[in-house]
Amino acid sequence: MTVVNRQAPARSSGTRRRGKVLEQAILDATIEQLRTVGYVGLSMEGVAAVAGTGKAALYRRWSNREELVGAALSSVLPDPTAIPLSGDTSADLLALLRCMRDAIAVTHGTVFQVVRSEAAEAAGGMMHVVVGQRVMDPCHELIRDVLRAGVEAGRLRPDADSRMIATVGPAMIVHYVVHTGPTVPDDYLVSIVDEVLRPLTSARANG
Amino acid sequence: MTVVNRQAPARSSGTRRRGKVLEQAILDATIEQLRTVGYVGLSMEGVAAVAGTGKAALYRRWSNREELVGAALSSVLPDPTAIPLSGDTSADLLALLRCMRDAIAVTHGTVFQVVRSEAAEAAGGMMHVVVGQRVMDPCHELIRDVLRAGVEAGRLRPDADSRMIATVGPAMIVHYVVHTGPTVPDDYLVSIVDEVLRPLTSARANG
Repeated sequence: MTVVNRQAPARSSGTRRRGKVLEQAILDATIEQLRTVGYVGLSMEGVAAVAGTGKAALYRRWSNREELVGAALSSVLPDPTAIPLSGDTSADLLALLRCMRDAIAVTHGTVFQVVRSEAAEAAGGMMHVVVGQRVMDPCHELIRDVLRAGVEAGRLRPDADSRMIATVGPAMIVHYVVHTGPTVPDDYLVSIVDEVLRPLTSARANG
Repeated sequence: MTVVNRQAPARSSGTRRRGKVLEQAILDATIEQLRTVGYVGLSMEGVAAVAGTGKAALYRRWSNREELVGAALSSVLPDPTAIPLSGDTSADLLALLRCMRDAIAVTHGTVFQVVRSEAAEAAGGMMHVVVGQRVMDPCHELIRDVLRAGVEAGRLRPDADSRMIATVGPAMIVHYVVHTGPTVPDDYLVSIVDEVLRPLTSARANG
């Protein structure tokens, strides 16, 4: 309920750029703190100290720790909407699976610290929600869009854009991470597309 | 390095059956303790008390807590080798996916307690290993056997028994558990077979 003063102080012209640089420094410090002390050990004070600024600079931008961590995670996550889709179904599916793989890789260090902590469930859930909303869910939707476009173009069989089929790629990635580890090799993603998704979706003689 | 006395004491004829009943009571007590106090809170003393016996009865059978918990988990897990396989590929795949689903359902309560505990990683890893060795890995292998038999019979396309394809069903289950919860509906398993595995593996006109 505090009214935040969004007016920049007197030093106006240099402020905007310094503001962005400072913001990035704070987000970087937040990621570093997540990796070293974990979500539970992370505090606004600690992040401010690492970023070489004061708490006020943080609270001007984010009202609490959850918002700050959400912003920091978003700043390191890949952006699915920025992936150029070519219209080549296999290439586009591979690009979207790579985006999901990258999101897992980039957040693994932070998630790992969180899971070891006492507040594992709440914090892990929060990370999961952020990564899901920013990357996993949009990628999943885009996979379905790519399949739908292939069906409409007559390149894929008529029911290749089902929810179940759109889930196969993401499921193979999750299975790899759970059973083997957070670094999913590119070969594995290529195999998902070539050995599973292509034969599963391609229009054949009787498709 | 302790030499365990495997000789039954004097009361011989009644001992065997009482032994099995007692053993089952101890295993049941172990599962109950896993559900209530979790793996970290579980002790040989605590289990003995719940089972209404003494510690010696436990140590005669299992030399430590890890062995006892492994035996208790095994006693509640489904046995993949007991699944009758009919030779109908879809029916057999569904039976194996159900076995995996049941293994997750039956251990969820215990795993959940474990994950909330301080020794989450080691204990969760131990559960994961037991469930993996007793159910998940054998089911995964049996899925591949079923696919191989279908290929050999000419019902499935020649490369339908690949490691990647055999992983699709298990991956869809793991994805469901991670994203939705530990109780995987039967309809979902049926959809995996009908909407994914059958179109992915069936021999078609040009298959």
